[in-house]
Amino acid sequence: MSATITAASPASALVCRNCGAEFPLGPQHACLECWGPLEIGYDADALARVSREQIESGSNSIWRYAGLLPVGQDPATRVESFTGMTPLIRADELAAELGFTAPVWIKDDSANPTHSFKDRVVSVAMTAARELGFRRIACASTGNLANSVAAHASRIGMPSIVFIPSDLEPAKITQTAIYGGTLVGIDGNYDDVNRLCSELGETDEFEDTGFVNVNIRPYYAEGSKTLGFEVAEQLGWRLPGQYVAPMASGSMLTKINKSFKELVAAGLVPSSSWKVYGAQSAGCSPIATAFDAGHDVVQPVRPTGIAKSLNIGNPADGPYALDAVRASGGAMAAVDDDEIREGIRLLARTTGVFAETAGGVTVAVLAKLVKEGRIDTSLETVVYNTGDGLKTVDAVSEGARPTAVIKPTLKGMREAGLL
Amino acid sequence: MSATITAASPASALVCRNCGAEFPLGPQHACLECWGPLEIGYDADALARVSREQIESGSNSIWRYAGLLPVGQDPATRVESFTGMTPLIRADELAAELGFTAPVWIKDDSANPTHSFKDRVVSVAMTAARELGFRRIACASTGNLANSVAAHASRIGMPSIVFIPSDLEPAKITQTAIYGGTLVGIDGNYDDVNRLCSELGETDEFEDTGFVNVNIRPYYAEGSKTLGFEVAEQLGWRLPGQYVAPMASGSMLTKINKSFKELVAAGLVPSSSWKVYGAQSAGCSPIATAFDAGHDVVQPVRPTGIAKSLNIGNPADGPYALDAVRASGGAMAAVDDDEIREGIRLLARTTGVFAETAGGVTVAVLAKLVKEGRIDTSLETVVYNTGDGLKTVDAVSEGARPTAVIKPTLKGMREAGLL
Repeated sequence: MSATITAASPASALVCRNCGAEFPLGPQHACLECWGPLEIGYDADALARVSREQIESGSNSIWRYAGLLPVGQDPATRVESFTGMTPLIRADELAAELGFTAPVWIKDDSANPTHSFKDRVVSVAMTAARELGFRRIACASTGNLANSVAAHASRIGMPSIVFIPSDLEPAKITQTAIYGGTLVGIDGNYDDVNRLCSELGETDEFEDTGFVNVNIRPYYAEGSKTLGFEVAEQLGWRLPGQYVAPMASGSMLTKINKSFKELVAAGLVPSSSWKVYGAQSAGCSPIATAFDAGHDVVQPVRPTGIAKSLNIGNPADGPYALDAVRASGGAMAAVDDDEIREGIRLLARTTGVFAETAGGVTVAVLAKLVKEGRIDTSLETVVYNTGDGLKTVDAVSEGARPTAVIKPTLKGMREAGLL
Repeated sequence: MSATITAASPASALVCRNCGAEFPLGPQHACLECWGPLEIGYDADALARVSREQIESGSNSIWRYAGLLPVGQDPATRVESFTGMTPLIRADELAAELGFTAPVWIKDDSANPTHSFKDRVVSVAMTAARELGFRRIACASTGNLANSVAAHASRIGMPSIVFIPSDLEPAKITQTAIYGGTLVGIDGNYDDVNRLCSELGETDEFEDTGFVNVNIRPYYAEGSKTLGFEVAEQLGWRLPGQYVAPMASGSMLTKINKSFKELVAAGLVPSSSWKVYGAQSAGCSPIATAFDAGHDVVQPVRPTGIAKSLNIGNPADGPYALDAVRASGGAMAAVDDDEIREGIRLLARTTGVFAETAGGVTVAVLAKLVKEGRIDTSLETVVYNTGDGLKTVDAVSEGARPTAVIKPTLKGMREAGLL
C-alpha cells in the first residue's frame, strides 16, 4: 500500500523513536534510516487548540478525543464500536486493605465491547486501515486483540484473518471464531505468531491486508492514549499521582505516559508529576527483569504461566517502558500464578470487578510494591484493569465454587449451617 | 422489616396488578387483599415534570432516569455501578439477511458491568434495599442475577447470599463465587430455588435480608424500564415500531412496555403505536405455549435446554407478558437449541455482538417470525440482547474453532490453503 492519511488531523508525520527521522503518514512502522520503531508526531499548535469543552461535548466513546488522535476527526470515517469512557471506580476498601492513605481508583476496561482495552487500539487501527485503503484486517494476538479485531471486522463488514497461539484460553478462541472471520491457530508462542505475521506482511498475497499491530502499529498504539485521557477527564481534568499498568509488549504503559504529557502540553490539565509502575507475571517478566538488573536492553524469554494475554517474550516496546518508569521514579515487579489468582480475588471481593489474569497481575503487583515499601501509599493511584475475568475463568474456577450445595429445603439450609 | 421509602420520588404507592389495592412503599410484593403481585404506582404529575433536558444532563447511567424510578432521586442514595446507556447498534447486515426494509437495532446489554441486563434491576433493588434498612442482600437466580447481586454487594460492602440451581454454566458459577459472598447451589431447578427463597423470607434469620426478586421485587422490576427509556432517548426521543425481548419470568418484556407508556404519558416522546414480541426456548416455553393456545393461564413446565438463563418453568409475570403482547398485536415464538446456536452465530457474524444463549433465543425467534410471516419487516425493530456470550461459551464452542492450526511458517500457511 502506498496510500497516506490525508484527512485533516493534528498528526503531522511518522517519527522514528530512535533517530527522529520523519516520514509521511503511511502504512509504515519501521524507520527507513535506522529500522527503529515509528510513532505518530503531532503539530503542537493543533493539539493546543483542543479544548475541554470540545471534548466534553463529543461522543461518549474514545472518539471524544479525536482531536488528540491521528484519525477519526470526521465522525463519518470512524470505526465506532462504543468503546471507551469505561468506569473509573473508587476502590476505598481495596485502598484500606492495602494501607493506602490516598484514593485508589480502578480504571475498568472490561467494560469495553469485547471486554478488554484492545477495543481502543483496534477502533483507531481499523479507522486508519480503511483510510489507508486496506481491504482486509489482521493481527497477531495473545487473545484479547483477536477478540476485538474479529468483532470489529464483523461490525464493519471487512474480512479478517487473526493469528493466535493455539493454546490460548478456550473462551478467547470461541469469542474470536464466533464472528465468522478466518482464525489461524499457530503451533507456537506469541513471538512465533508475530514473526509469521511480519513475514506475511511482505508477501504479495497480504499486500491489501492491514496488520493492526505490525504495519499499522503506529496508529494502533495511539489508541491506548485514551486510557490516560479518560482518567484525567474523569478525575476532573487533572492527573493522578501514579498509575500501575500491566506490560506485555510494553506499549500501553508508555502510551498512557505519552497521553499525560500531551494533556499537559495542550494545556488541558495542570502540570504535575506522576510515577509509572509496570506489572508483569513471573512466567514472562523480561521487562521487569531488565528493570531490576538496571539494563536498558530487554533479554527475550520463553513465556509460561496463566497470564497468557501478557505472554510476549520479546516485547517490542520494552526499552520505552523501562525509560518511562525510570524517568518517573516508579518501579516494576513480577508476581507468580498464585499471587495472580489472589490479585483477582482481592479485586473482586473489594470492588465487584472481575478481572482476567492480566488484571490479577496488576493488582498483585500493586500489593507487592506496597509490601516491599516500593510505592508511595500517600499518592492518588490509578490501577488499570485491562480485561475481563470471564475470558480466563479457568484460572480461578477451582477456588470459586458454591459455599454449599443443598436440597431446596429449610432442612437443607440448616444442615449446611446457613440457617 | 417495617420501613418504607421516605425519600422524595415520583412513586406514590405499591399497587396490586390484579385488584388495584394500594399499599405504602414498603418491603412487600403481594397484595394483602387478593395476593396479587404489587407494582410501583406513580404520581402522574410528578412524571410529567421530568424533562428531556433534565435526563440528558444527568449521569451516563440508568440513574439519568431517576425521575422516572421509585428510588435514587438523591445521587448520594444510589447504588452506582455505571450500569446502562449500553450501545444501540444499527444492524444493517442483519436486517438485510432477514429481509427487513426498516432499520433493525440491537440494544446490547452485554455492555453492563457484569454483562447482562440484570445490573439494571439490581442497581435499583439494592438502592431500595438500603433505603428499606436491609442489612443483607439475596436472590434466586438462573445465573445472570447471581453475578450481578454478588458483584454489587462487594462494591457497596453489603453481605450477600445468592441461590442458584447447582447445574448452571461454569462461568456463571465462578463469576458469582469470585466476589466472596455466600453462594448456595441448589439440587433442583430455578423454580425450586425460588420456592426456597420465598420460604426463607418468612424466617426470623432472614428478616434483615432483602431478596431482590422476592420481597423487594416491585422496586427491582422497575429497573428494566430503563431498557425502554434508553432506546427512546437513543432514537432521538421517539419509540420504535416494535421490539423483541426474551422471556424468563416475563417481567422484563412487560416493563419495557410500561416504560414506553410512561414516556408517552409524561410527554417525553410523541404518542405512537408499537408491537411487542416475546421469545422463549423450546426447552422452556410456558408463556409462548399459552400464547399459541390462546390461554390466559400459564401452565408450568419442567425446563430443559441450553438457554439456562431463561429456564423459569413457572413464570411469575407470564400472564402480564401475554397481555402486553396480545394488546399490542405482536406475537410469541420458541426456538430449539440448534436454532439458538444459529441465532448466536448470526448475530455475531453480522454485528460483532457475541450474545449468550438468551440473545441467541431472541435473534432466532426474530428470524423465525420473519420466516413465518408473523412480523412486519417494514417496521423499525429493536432486538434486546440481554447477556454475554462469554457466560455460555460452551453452548457454541464446538462449532467455533480455528479455521486451521499450523506451524508458524509460510509453508504452513500454504499447506493450509491460506497463502
